[in-house]
Amino acid sequence: MSNKAVSYAGPGKVEVIDTPYPEFELKDGPGVNPANVGRQVHHGIILKTVSTNICGSDQHMVRGRTTAPEGLVLGHEITGEVVEVGRDVEFIKKGDIVSVPFNIACGRCRNCKEGKTGICLNVNPERPGSAYGYVDMGGWVGGQAEYVLVPYADWNLLTFPDKDQAMEKILDLTMLSDIFPTGFHGAVSAGVGVGSTVYVAGAGPVGLAAATSAHLLGAAVVIVGDLNADRLAQAKSFGCETVDVSKGDPKDQIEQILGVPEVDCGVDAVGFEARGHGENAKTEAPATVLNSLMDITRAGGALGIPGLYVTGDPGAAEEGAREGSLSIRFGLGFAKSHVFVTGQCPVMQYHRGLMQAILHDKVSIAKNVNATAISLDQAPQGYEDFDKGAAKKFVLDPHGMIDAA
Amino acid sequence: MSNKAVSYAGPGKVEVIDTPYPEFELKDGPGVNPANVGRQVHHGIILKTVSTNICGSDQHMVRGRTTAPEGLVLGHEITGEVVEVGRDVEFIKKGDIVSVPFNIACGRCRNCKEGKTGICLNVNPERPGSAYGYVDMGGWVGGQAEYVLVPYADWNLLTFPDKDQAMEKILDLTMLSDIFPTGFHGAVSAGVGVGSTVYVAGAGPVGLAAATSAHLLGAAVVIVGDLNADRLAQAKSFGCETVDVSKGDPKDQIEQILGVPEVDCGVDAVGFEARGHGENAKTEAPATVLNSLMDITRAGGALGIPGLYVTGDPGAAEEGAREGSLSIRFGLGFAKSHVFVTGQCPVMQYHRGLMQAILHDKVSIAKNVNATAISLDQAPQGYEDFDKGAAKKFVLDPHGMIDAA
Amino acid sequence: MSNKAVSYAGPGKVEVIDTPYPEFELKDGPGVNPANVGRQVHHGIILKTVSTNICGSDQHMVRGRTTAPEGLVLGHEITGEVVEVGRDVEFIKKGDIVSVPFNIACGRCRNCKEGKTGICLNVNPERPGSAYGYVDMGGWVGGQAEYVLVPYADWNLLTFPDKDQAMEKILDLTMLSDIFPTGFHGAVSAGVGVGSTVYVAGAGPVGLAAATSAHLLGAAVVIVGDLNADRLAQAKSFGCETVDVSKGDPKDQIEQILGVPEVDCGVDAVGFEARGHGENAKTEAPATVLNSLMDITRAGGALGIPGLYVTGDPGAAEEGAREGSLSIRFGLGFAKSHVFVTGQCPVMQYHRGLMQAILHDKVSIAKNVNATAISLDQAPQGYEDFDKGAAKKFVLDPHGMIDAA
Amino acid sequence: MSNKAVSYAGPGKVEVIDTPYPEFELKDGPGVNPANVGRQVHHGIILKTVSTNICGSDQHMVRGRTTAPEGLVLGHEITGEVVEVGRDVEFIKKGDIVSVPFNIACGRCRNCKEGKTGICLNVNPERPGSAYGYVDMGGWVGGQAEYVLVPYADWNLLTFPDKDQAMEKILDLTMLSDIFPTGFHGAVSAGVGVGSTVYVAGAGPVGLAAATSAHLLGAAVVIVGDLNADRLAQAKSFGCETVDVSKGDPKDQIEQILGVPEVDCGVDAVGFEARGHGENAKTEAPATVLNSLMDITRAGGALGIPGLYVTGDPGAAEEGAREGSLSIRFGLGFAKSHVFVTGQCPVMQYHRGLMQAILHDKVSIAKNVNATAISLDQAPQGYEDFDKGAAKKFVLDPHGMIDAA
Repeated sequence: MSNKAVSYAGPGKVEVIDTPYPEFELKDGPGVNPANVGRQVHHGIILKTVSTNICGSDQHMVRGRTTAPEGLVLGHEITGEVVEVGRDVEFIKKGDIVSVPFNIACGRCRNCKEGKTGICLNVNPERPGSAYGYVDMGGWVGGQAEYVLVPYADWNLLTFPDKDQAMEKILDLTMLSDIFPTGFHGAVSAGVGVGSTVYVAGAGPVGLAAATSAHLLGAAVVIVGDLNADRLAQAKSFGCETVDVSKGDPKDQIEQILGVPEVDCGVDAVGFEARGHGENAKTEAPATVLNSLMDITRAGGALGIPGLYVTGDPGAAEEGAREGSLSIRFGLGFAKSHVFVTGQCPVMQYHRGLMQAILHDKVSIAKNVNATAISLDQAPQGYEDFDKGAAKKFVLDPHGMIDAA
Repeated sequence: MSNKAVSYAGPGKVEVIDTPYPEFELKDGPGVNPANVGRQVHHGIILKTVSTNICGSDQHMVRGRTTAPEGLVLGHEITGEVVEVGRDVEFIKKGDIVSVPFNIACGRCRNCKEGKTGICLNVNPERPGSAYGYVDMGGWVGGQAEYVLVPYADWNLLTFPDKDQAMEKILDLTMLSDIFPTGFHGAVSAGVGVGSTVYVAGAGPVGLAAATSAHLLGAAVVIVGDLNADRLAQAKSFGCETVDVSKGDPKDQIEQILGVPEVDCGVDAVGFEARGHGENAKTEAPATVLNSLMDITRAGGALGIPGLYVTGDPGAAEEGAREGSLSIRFGLGFAKSHVFVTGQCPVMQYHRGLMQAILHDKVSIAKNVNATAISLDQAPQGYEDFDKGAAKKFVLDPHGMIDAA
Repeated sequence: MSNKAVSYAGPGKVEVIDTPYPEFELKDGPGVNPANVGRQVHHGIILKTVSTNICGSDQHMVRGRTTAPEGLVLGHEITGEVVEVGRDVEFIKKGDIVSVPFNIACGRCRNCKEGKTGICLNVNPERPGSAYGYVDMGGWVGGQAEYVLVPYADWNLLTFPDKDQAMEKILDLTMLSDIFPTGFHGAVSAGVGVGSTVYVAGAGPVGLAAATSAHLLGAAVVIVGDLNADRLAQAKSFGCETVDVSKGDPKDQIEQILGVPEVDCGVDAVGFEARGHGENAKTEAPATVLNSLMDITRAGGALGIPGLYVTGDPGAAEEGAREGSLSIRFGLGFAKSHVFVTGQCPVMQYHRGLMQAILHDKVSIAKNVNATAISLDQAPQGYEDFDKGAAKKFVLDPHGMIDAA
Repeated sequence: MSNKAVSYAGPGKVEVIDTPYPEFELKDGPGVNPANVGRQVHHGIILKTVSTNICGSDQHMVRGRTTAPEGLVLGHEITGEVVEVGRDVEFIKKGDIVSVPFNIACGRCRNCKEGKTGICLNVNPERPGSAYGYVDMGGWVGGQAEYVLVPYADWNLLTFPDKDQAMEKILDLTMLSDIFPTGFHGAVSAGVGVGSTVYVAGAGPVGLAAATSAHLLGAAVVIVGDLNADRLAQAKSFGCETVDVSKGDPKDQIEQILGVPEVDCGVDAVGFEARGHGENAKTEAPATVLNSLMDITRAGGALGIPGLYVTGDPGAAEEGAREGSLSIRFGLGFAKSHVFVTGQCPVMQYHRGLMQAILHDKVSIAKNVNATAISLDQAPQGYEDFDKGAAKKFVLDPHGMIDAA
């Protein structure tokens, strides 16, 4: 059986290739950790991919900023229909439409038991935490493919209650595998609640998801900053205020909006590939967002940091940044008693509630991030457009099921 | 200077009387605790009442279900303009428009320091917790009056940032002194979050405020139960599902709405004057709501209980209830690991955030509770209509300022 | 292979019988829910029981206060050595010494994912929550036996890091399966922290475990109340203050100890078989403890309720209590803004930390509860002594391994 | 009336000088913010200083690492007897023995109402947060003096219940004004609980207080790292494990102690004047401790950071550090989902519980930090010895009251 998939083909390039149909075993292949080769996956299911999104963090690999090997199958934002059920699976059934959290978790280690599924101890031999189709994450095959293996299915998967309803809302529900919970985690960990004023740095899909989440959590004012006019327009489309950081420091623009130069909560939806503000907007300056958030978040506030920071960045402009070190005005944060919450979002803590919000029409995440379905074959074009800053969230539709729905 | 006020005049009766203009001292009068007589209030301010609402808990007194003395000036939901500032007040200024939390708190005791302002240790000689114009609460004079004294002003008061804006939204902002935070506290303490399913028992103003709060907190489905058709219609008007408890047990109706006979979160916005369900809907049955909530709230859920339960209820139908004892199916709650959160809402924990939500148009509390302004002279009629079940929240307008705005 | 086990033999009687050696399937037998008969348990392991304790909640069945069928194998406090590993088990290994949480949990349902393992949705067809060897809990065979089947082993079990060390401390570690976490949960949910004053109602093993936990959590003063002098002496032995409730209301005695008649935190380690205070100490009065705790816990405090309350109690003295209804002074709790936390302890939330505390000599739970090892054959005598109020926690030693250690 | 006090006399020098006896007004003087000059303090009391401790953060000023002006009266760790009560004070009485939180807070601003008294908005015109006798903190006069003014007395002060008992335990209770809560805050914000393994960087008084707190919170193992042998011996004296960071990276030594090279919780009790590890132990390297804690704290753990980081450090060795920027391996923290909790300890959240723990003999903080009383005149010597690394916490005794007790 064939299994077309999107794979990394060297800096700046992705291509659609033929790959093996998954079995209940993790086979050797590009990027698979030796210790994971041959791992039995009777606790897994095989999924016919209904939708799978291109993520900003895929771009880090595609831009050649990581050690990802050529041939790596990409894709960690996966929604699908269960077509085969492993021997040890008890509660997930064939035919279920399910959302796959991008973090792979065993459901049996100390961290999983504490709900910290973003840093599961048993799935990645290298370090805590894992994901599909990602460099240094253990080698679990990516889901930008027609079919994909999902381990520990009873633990990881969220089943949608009704298949027809699920297909009707698939462009919203597809965001549950990563960016909606990731943005939500950013907002929650920044302390967003009813009446908060919030600044979200970055108007890419995660930033827009964080802004959407802030609204859903009852924030009074949500301000989104970016230097891409299309993305700012997208933020404005669902009731956010916006700040164009290419025009200068966000602080002044925030003061114009709020009357005070500070917000209750700061969300970093940019991460380590940040650029400067104002005149420096074209230069990479990896600590810009963190330093700016400390400046504009009120004393006693918190910083939610869903944006990715890496342990090494060989292509970084600054020497320290190559080893993952950033020059941070930590004393400023200390003076304001800031709390910094970092790390991959533990999707399972949030996806059920967010699904309920989608199914009961409380939130329009697809519209807010401008979800745009394309075929698997169009993936290379999608990557290219997204890299150029298209104000879109690309959703791959490997079997034409979205198109049909 | 004259000071017209609404006072309790015996079971079933309120009247508008002349009372002394307040000074910075708590003078003797109906219901004033002897230990509080003569108490100096240099930390207080005198307020020209802009709006002051009739509350369901006032009804307990007016119905003669308490030991409230005749002549007691009523009113604990107060919003006003500061006209005199006590000697020791530092941050509240003359001319400020402020919301007064119904719980009076000193800001200096252990409970206040822990944010538990509903059970301040220093304002009521009888027991922890106090309020304006309420029996056994220390004797602080009620605010259904032209002018009222507010103690510990720097601690208690919430100042609105802009006077004109405040007057424009006064029918919303007036709900910050009690029912909006009280309903919100019920929702929060029932564990309502994004995606929750919620049942609110009672569609009086507090129930409607709890339902409004559940929506604001991101609940997926909010179901409100009552036996008053007008109040249920009011709940429906802002997106709630409804259950008519006069038609039988809420469980079945919940199952019809949700597909399952249980909700994530239960809110008791009724309290001790509850009646039975279905055929028993005309009989008082004080534990009905608590027992019903245990039945319909899922295992692991919580019960938020803003509805008032009293330590003694001389007019109760059941003997135990006269001493505040209720026959509760506690074993059922235990089997489901329920958590029960009781007590007066500590308004100060919530009013600032809710004000922000109002000022930035995130919530329409006035519309949802059907706020209806009447003059001070119309108060007796308002009490009567409210007691009959009018689906309205009456807001007294002692100086015609709402009318003008 | 033989498998001796302790079983219920009618009111007031237990006996040691021969039972089948466990297989990886739940077979029919006394008390097994029909829907569970034949359930495959490839996710389970078979344990050679190292130690298994008699629990106060076993007594409810043995006294004939429940519908437990004769022949039911008892025992839900189990520690053992893994002798067989089911097909689907991945991380638990043969030879491991493990603690078994008394609540059986699947690790795959919504409640388990939220850490609420006391109310797992997948193991008991009757209602959320399950346990070994207990009436109406699904029919999982009890562990007061030589061998026992443990389902969902990767999820449920806590492995001790070192076998020799484990056997040295086995009388402490055996308390991790139930009473130590249960007492700890009571203390935590009552809000006990550094500097708290605490009242624990009941000096049985759970009460003593709650008192031990309160000390471990840094409480300033821990007061234990009971009417059994030996048990009070046991509490005194590790630094608790004591109250003899047969001499009158605890309030006065608390005032003598603390100078004030109230504590910060109240723990109910008695449950539904409570008796009155003072002159009424010989009469069952099921709401006594709850009402007393509301009386003596300060406004703003919480009540942790590990003591069992049941949904039905056919042998109760009061009519309401037979249906699980208690006459509770709920208005008193409301006036003090009390929070009530009920339900079975979710052992997995606590057992790892408590194990660490035991292994590093921070706590002496065996000594504090007076752990006393006896052979399986002595179980009937142990039940009898415990029922008479022996100030001991009986630990069964089916293979003489404790004796050897 | 005379008022001897310890003042800063230029880099490396303190001296005892005569200063004015305090009045209920903040008068002009060295370091007083112009906007605070003439501020009326009727809400204050005047304290006869019973004890006042030398703090590590005083050293930053004395070493000339700040812009503190000569003549600044030092001292923010104050315990005393109330000798005069301001006009507006209601609950603090003359004769009370009280502990003064080092953070000055108004009890009336948003942050105080949220319990964030370390960043009060109303006492320091320069920025949120204030303290006695400290540069850039508003100019409130220090308490290393015979008498001192304490503003907002009803809010800030903790009264000891019994004067005689207080004087008996004064060397313990004197730690409540700063280092005990500060160390406790570090432990709490690092997530220390029952059974935790903890690494505390720094064995100065705050580090020892954090280690003491970790024990009090039930930690299983507490490891303290420093390069001062005397201070490590002090840590060992109360049951801590120790790591000599001059002998190399703490990671290896932790592995030898625990069997694993990581701990659950990391506390930074060093701050910005950190030095390197191993061979670099003599060089300042301000991010050493933060980077090391990310390395040794397990994925999912938290970093409690009571150690001071400043917004500017003119005397720093690295250029970035002069502006408060540190080169932090933030990507490492992100990969491990670390949470960083910074800021001055909000003393009022903790001092009451810690007082209870002291008064009921649950903790021996004075012994653990080696509290050593000296006279006010010996202060210059105390500063010198402390700067040289004496394993002592110096307590000044301006009136010989400790000596007498």
